Amino acid sequence: MQVVSKNELDVLSADIFMSMGANVDDAKQAASVLTSADLRGVDSHGVSRLVGYVALWEAGRINMIPNVKIVREHKSTFTIDGDCGLGLVVAPRAMAIAIERAKVYGSGWGAVRNSNHFGVAGYHAMMALPHDMIGMAMTNATPFIPPTYSKEAMLGTNPIAYAFPTHQENPLVIDLATSSVARGKIEIAKREGKKIPKGWMVDKHGNDSQNVDELKDGGMLTPLGSLEELSSHKGYALGGLVDLLCGVLSGANYGKWVPPFVPYLPVLPDLPGKGLGHFVGAMEVEGFQDTHEFKLRMDHWIRSFKNAKRINKAQPVFVPGEKEFATEAERKVNGIPLNDKVASDLEVLKKKFGL
Amino acid sequence: MQVVSKNELDVLSADIFMSMGANVDDAKQAASVLTSADLRGVDSHGVSRLVGYVALWEAGRINMIPNVKIVREHKSTFTIDGDCGLGLVVAPRAMAIAIERAKVYGSGWGAVRNSNHFGVAGYHAMMALPHDMIGMAMTNATPFIPPTYSKEAMLGTNPIAYAFPTHQENPLVIDLATSSVARGKIEIAKREGKKIPKGWMVDKHGNDSQNVDELKDGGMLTPLGSLEELSSHKGYALGGLVDLLCGVLSGANYGKWVPPFVPYLPVLPDLPGKGLGHFVGAMEVEGFQDTHEFKLRMDHWIRSFKNAKRINKAQPVFVPGEKEFATEAERKVNGIPLNDKVASDLEVLKKKFGL
Repeated sequence: MQVVSKNELDVLSADIFMSMGANVDDAKQAASVLTSADLRGVDSHGVSRLVGYVALWEAGRINMIPNVKIVREHKSTFTIDGDCGLGLVVAPRAMAIAIERAKVYGSGWGAVRNSNHFGVAGYHAMMALPHDMIGMAMTNATPFIPPTYSKEAMLGTNPIAYAFPTHQENPLVIDLATSSVARGKIEIAKREGKKIPKGWMVDKHGNDSQNVDELKDGGMLTPLGSLEELSSHKGYALGGLVDLLCGVLSGANYGKWVPPFVPYLPVLPDLPGKGLGHFVGAMEVEGFQDTHEFKLRMDHWIRSFKNAKRINKAQPVFVPGEKEFATEAERKVNGIPLNDKVASDLEVLKKKFGL
Repeated sequence: MQVVSKNELDVLSADIFMSMGANVDDAKQAASVLTSADLRGVDSHGVSRLVGYVALWEAGRINMIPNVKIVREHKSTFTIDGDCGLGLVVAPRAMAIAIERAKVYGSGWGAVRNSNHFGVAGYHAMMALPHDMIGMAMTNATPFIPPTYSKEAMLGTNPIAYAFPTHQENPLVIDLATSSVARGKIEIAKREGKKIPKGWMVDKHGNDSQNVDELKDGGMLTPLGSLEELSSHKGYALGGLVDLLCGVLSGANYGKWVPPFVPYLPVLPDLPGKGLGHFVGAMEVEGFQDTHEFKLRMDHWIRSFKNAKRINKAQPVFVPGEKEFATEAERKVNGIPLNDKVASDLEVLKKKFGL
């Protein structure tokens, strides 16, 4: 287990993106999205993904010098074409425009098409916080979840993120995939030989399965709610909501046509749009309420939930995002641990690019 | 089982609201929200709720002639004080303002405080459809759900509704409570002596329970995701999101302080806000994409999901809202069935008000 600082990871990641052809600003931006995830303990969306971005770029599916532009707009709303750029670059630009619009019109909302995987959704939502705004970010993603009663992967893990500014407490950051669990959680159980609960996955026939080996044989994740009797139709609807805003509204692909994050999976024919899509937004608190008053209310909300009566005295009640802030504080002091696989992947990339 | 027309229910419901002191426009508006739910098969949120509204009014908790006003605004965003009016009246007014703002600024977003139960969320979101807008509506509600690891009811069923306009297909309407299941579903199982699945409810200690009798003895609903191992923290975060936008941002109450819908449950002391809260919004499609093109894409999305490969050939794959449109078509022809309890409740109200 290697331990590195965020700064080391930032430099290395930016060097890799520059080696792929990005300019220095874009490379630093893309690196920042990844390494912030590592710092905050969302290791699945950090530098471990670099090999994936490189593989997609080698397959000719990422444009490292995209001409990101607004293609349609009406005051608080706009659509961005990402010109097939890294989502790590395109989404922050869309979010920056949403924030500018919110300063002028109270809120700003951007649909983004022709983009790629944008990393961790919470990063983009949190961009609104220094502006005393509520931030929002969603993306559609590689299809890996069947709708209720279906055995066909039609939705990705389609995350929803919101960030709320606070006074003394840490900001409240919601960042959740609309699947029951992440694929990584099943892979960890497989590696550790642990049994998974009923409801985490289905087999290729769409039936619930606890055989983790089937994940590589057509198995799929379940929508939040897991199985039909526990209201998987709600998770399906939420994943669908994300797909409609990110894919249908923006002009990107949607449903089963969302281009997979890995180059070895085929892109379907007859694509209904361009690339994958995001939806981002920002709302200035001041248009709704005195900002200071709002932040005090946020603190009060957070404390009331953290102090909610516990089932078990030893098990705290968390608020959304609390664990990530704790990890961030700890890793700022002690560094970011990289597991052996990630460390060796990074070594391979360093050699590939002569870094 | 009595069968009535929507028109009969509209007239009766409006008469009841007028007997409570509403003016004719407000009475018709409130009636329309309820009877539309009955027509669309959401019986739990239709005229069956009239006795509840009357009981709250008798307890002095509803102002039938509210002065609903904008208390703060910035172009696309605003906050409404509902003056303790019926949510059935306050929410449509907020939605109408959101739609007007969206015409001017591309989108409109309203936080609402000092309101009451607003009926079915989907109704308000669907108000955007004739304007070629995407509609959104949320509300916080009577606390009945503990956060993950807690045994204290801190969140209501806090629904999220979105409505998307379409071309030839029915509009796509998402309307989901952020609980695993509705309380009514457990009550039906109890009445029919059926066993409920693990994950639908917890007992007063916060532990999962399949004993439906415990619902009346401190039992609670679970957040979407149901139990911890199936990611109840995500349903908790979604219910929390609704509470933050509806309660904290608007200046309404939130969390355990949300005033219960029934007069026999106490309102807590030290309220942090006024009444309960909603959050509504509208986004004009035209600001993002050519409206006709968007509607064609919506149709395509809907058809692709309805045609997704089935697990069981006899069991169709639904899109969100599809069942409600089917029920609406059927009940427009055959009328709305009222169960004996609802029919007798309505008779009691008729006598009470001399109708």
